[in-house]
Amino acid sequence: MKSIIRIGMVQMNATVGDLNANKGKILQSIANARTKEVDIVIFPELAVCGYPPEDLLLKRHFVQDNIKTLRSIVKETAHITAIVGFVDTDKKGNIYNAAAIIHNKVIKKIYHKQKLPNYGVFDEARYFTRGEENFTFCLGSFCFGVSICEDMWDRKGICHEQVKSGAQVLINISASPFHTGKRKEREQMVCRRARDEQASIFYLNLVGGQDELVFDGGSFIVNNKGTIIASGTSLNEDFICADINTSSLGKKKKILSSPAFSVVLSFKEKRKRAAITCRKLKALNKIEEIYKALVLGTRDYVQKNGFQKVVVGLSGGIDSALTAVIAHDALGKNNVVGISMPSQYSSPGTQRDAEHLAQKLGLQFITVPIQRMYQGYLDLLKKEFHGLKQDATEENLQARIRGNILMAFSNKQGWLVLTTGNKSETAVGYCTLYGDMAGGFAVIKDVSKTCVYRLAQYRNRVGKNNVIPESIIQRAPSAELRAGQKDQDTLPPYSTLDAILEDYIERDKSFEEIVAQRGEAQTVRNVLAMVDRNEYKRRQGPPGIKITPKSFGRDRRLPITNRYRPMM
Amino acid sequence: MKSIIRIGMVQMNATVGDLNANKGKILQSIANARTKEVDIVIFPELAVCGYPPEDLLLKRHFVQDNIKTLRSIVKETAHITAIVGFVDTDKKGNIYNAAAIIHNKVIKKIYHKQKLPNYGVFDEARYFTRGEENFTFCLGSFCFGVSICEDMWDRKGICHEQVKSGAQVLINISASPFHTGKRKEREQMVCRRARDEQASIFYLNLVGGQDELVFDGGSFIVNNKGTIIASGTSLNEDFICADINTSSLGKKKKILSSPAFSVVLSFKEKRKRAAITCRKLKALNKIEEIYKALVLGTRDYVQKNGFQKVVVGLSGGIDSALTAVIAHDALGKNNVVGISMPSQYSSPGTQRDAEHLAQKLGLQFITVPIQRMYQGYLDLLKKEFHGLKQDATEENLQARIRGNILMAFSNKQGWLVLTTGNKSETAVGYCTLYGDMAGGFAVIKDVSKTCVYRLAQYRNRVGKNNVIPESIIQRAPSAELRAGQKDQDTLPPYSTLDAILEDYIERDKSFEEIVAQRGEAQTVRNVLAMVDRNEYKRRQGPPGIKITPKSFGRDRRLPITNRYRPMM
Repeated sequence: MKSIIRIGMVQMNATVGDLNANKGKILQSIANARTKEVDIVIFPELAVCGYPPEDLLLKRHFVQDNIKTLRSIVKETAHITAIVGFVDTDKKGNIYNAAAIIHNKVIKKIYHKQKLPNYGVFDEARYFTRGEENFTFCLGSFCFGVSICEDMWDRKGICHEQVKSGAQVLINISASPFHTGKRKEREQMVCRRARDEQASIFYLNLVGGQDELVFDGGSFIVNNKGTIIASGTSLNEDFICADINTSSLGKKKKILSSPAFSVVLSFKEKRKRAAITCRKLKALNKIEEIYKALVLGTRDYVQKNGFQKVVVGLSGGIDSALTAVIAHDALGKNNVVGISMPSQYSSPGTQRDAEHLAQKLGLQFITVPIQRMYQGYLDLLKKEFHGLKQDATEENLQARIRGNILMAFSNKQGWLVLTTGNKSETAVGYCTLYGDMAGGFAVIKDVSKTCVYRLAQYRNRVGKNNVIPESIIQRAPSAELRAGQKDQDTLPPYSTLDAILEDYIERDKSFEEIVAQRGEAQTVRNVLAMVDRNEYKRRQGPPGIKITPKSFGRDRRLPITNRYRPMM
Repeated sequence: MKSIIRIGMVQMNATVGDLNANKGKILQSIANARTKEVDIVIFPELAVCGYPPEDLLLKRHFVQDNIKTLRSIVKETAHITAIVGFVDTDKKGNIYNAAAIIHNKVIKKIYHKQKLPNYGVFDEARYFTRGEENFTFCLGSFCFGVSICEDMWDRKGICHEQVKSGAQVLINISASPFHTGKRKEREQMVCRRARDEQASIFYLNLVGGQDELVFDGGSFIVNNKGTIIASGTSLNEDFICADINTSSLGKKKKILSSPAFSVVLSFKEKRKRAAITCRKLKALNKIEEIYKALVLGTRDYVQKNGFQKVVVGLSGGIDSALTAVIAHDALGKNNVVGISMPSQYSSPGTQRDAEHLAQKLGLQFITVPIQRMYQGYLDLLKKEFHGLKQDATEENLQARIRGNILMAFSNKQGWLVLTTGNKSETAVGYCTLYGDMAGGFAVIKDVSKTCVYRLAQYRNRVGKNNVIPESIIQRAPSAELRAGQKDQDTLPPYSTLDAILEDYIERDKSFEEIVAQRGEAQTVRNVLAMVDRNEYKRRQGPPGIKITPKSFGRDRRLPITNRYRPMM
């Protein structure tokens, strides 16, 4: 029997812990799906409570409140099938990363995630018990399986079992965080799975920023030949909808060994629906995607934490310029304040550039010179430091005065301080703890200096008016903490540094492997030693947006006390 | 056949990553065991590389270096059996938390840990593959099993299987971190296991500080009736040795179903050994144990990170006084510097007390007044803050000036800054980020204010000379950041606050449960809201020593972006 099934995927931006707001979005989307005559409406992994809720999951009342929220959603599912991610529990108090399959105001079945990721940024084995049951669902003559994120990543795994049990369509709800190249990885994996299993796949991903993670959406639908037939936007909420003609799905597989348990849902085909056209969006290029991830991650961190305005220290350098532009794009020009805090070591060029940038962006711009405060500290400590040479102490003092000033504005005005450190300097500790590292959110913390330039150029290219003055892009990087200082006095050229850092941090390569590939043993040795030595600084830095396969933070958990020095 | 087997447990302080130093300790202990005519010498879990190595385990070269280190240890095991914790690997690149059973220069077998803790501070599922094989070992007529830490915590689990396969003695090597009451938990569990299985148990625990964790040792030996017959010191290195008369062990069990694989080790009984007398130490009381854990944790953090001296801001309050005394006990008076940084809000009493404390301890004492710097910031920001009321901004400025001064001494002199915040204020955010929170190590971060007083009184009682002046203990707590300020203007009394915090943080109780038990809904609501709101501060604080079942840090992983507000 031929029939048409309409499936809609709600690529939503859930907020961790905000059960009411998430419920509101879910109900609105169900209503919207109903007006579009959708048969099955799908929500992302843990849509009810947001992802990842981390140790909120250890609070029994949190889990109970999330279940209450789900129950109140169930009541609103008249004449529709909804698949909703939430946290389930059992009598023993175990909890599960779960999907409720709800049909016409009744929870027909709850699926428990079977593959629990526990690497990188993921800690699911800390919380969840592994599910053990597999199901297929029949809506009239149409048969589908439901799985959660990692469940689909194994060949011949859970989805294979669902297909063996008759599933023609596989639905996967995910919360898969962004890093460069991740969307392609997902698409390749899902298309391969579709070809392997000769099944259509509806892949739905969460969207939105949560602390260091950005979920990038980019949900899509693949036919049983492994071709993407519809896709959602990256880094925005979206609704992706398709009609499935059951006659096009090929024969239902015979039920073979180890079948998934089959659940029958009553079905009455809707008549006379206007056909839905699938959208297929062009993928973003690498730099565009990173830029948009930074904008979304910044906006969501600021707003989900209840802030409206942010403040950025503008030095006239490229890092603070890029940070300010991202903040401008995320929050609007009226919600970003730039503060210039020049010292005797600041060049007229950088000061002019800082002001110029603020003007171009239309930001409030405040100047607070720090020379007198700096001299004050020097006088205060003169006696104690008598006879000792000038060193990083004096440089750090300047950075910390600036940190204090920014934090004073933050305290007084309720503005969130955005820090401006990039991944290259965070890696080697070329930054001052409680100085330029002081602030609530580190927008470009996972962006290498090399990539900072590419993002700046990209933004100038796509926007009007070259908002980042060319002189900022051209000037040799300097912290301007002593006369004539340049980054390259202390660090190798950024192209060399970034290549070494990528090998060491993202690929966990050894000293010998890096030297073999990049040459220059002494440079490599110095860089690796700086990275190791500065773990304590990074541990006290603010969170920032992950854009690479391995960022500092939950993603890379090295001990501070660590005497492993293989390159010495 | 009756024989005497001598088993020695090396309760050692390993350092994470310091393969050479750990190897040195292991070889020295093997030599020492040989002079004591020991048959089996035992080392703690991951003794070769230290525990927990965290993401060092993701570096293949680290794992390889640890295996090379083990191999070089094997060569030094002539005529002795050694059980050594290390990281094993297989051809697929999986890694295992392992124990090598080495006999006369040959690795006879490698046991892989089967129960991998992945809760609280533990992330073992992130790294290790679960072992699946179980063994027993026969040394002459004597038969024993080896397990690693968590392996023993299950009833009828791995140890049961070893006993069913003939093991008369169970050897467990652990790295079990300290919190109050933990030693008793361990002893009760192990004694129960010994009674259940009618087997003797040798329980060996690591000792030493590693970032936020202190491993407290306290290794012990239990007979097959479940009675402790020997025990090692808490919070110190030790060597615990006992003779086992195989005839006293009762009959070897018949081998029943699912036997562990049996490994036979050649054995020649040593003649004419002088008998060994077992030591049984009195357990420390709760406060004494916490105090010693703080001393060890501080000493190891400072020294393992290559520092010699520390600096503490001495306000004349109880928190900084206790921190300074702990540092003094950990490092000696010549390695602790006290800095007083009075403002116009500092009372003559607190300034006198700070100096008095430093004198009693024999510390270098420096005074750096902050009034002028404070006035400098006020002048600098006057225009920008014109017409705005005085608030926490001005208080934070003072704290941040002090933070800058301490960090300047740290930068200039290479001293590590110890922060002085307790758990109560860290919980509710009654502290200044980049101000009093600025520093490398937070000694009493997990110690509630109530417990701070008990520790101070304990230290005065056991030491000479009442080092903490009574006036410091008696004075009502104040941050002295504005005229007449007292902690209790802002916070509930500490006894109330600490009780609420314990329920909320350590027991994950809900608002309703806490109100039901502690009354005063509005107080509870305020406290819980402060805890939630200040997650961002704690995330940027320095590490500190875990002494409770749930500390801030790896132990409690809450999102910063978290809109769960069930009590609103």
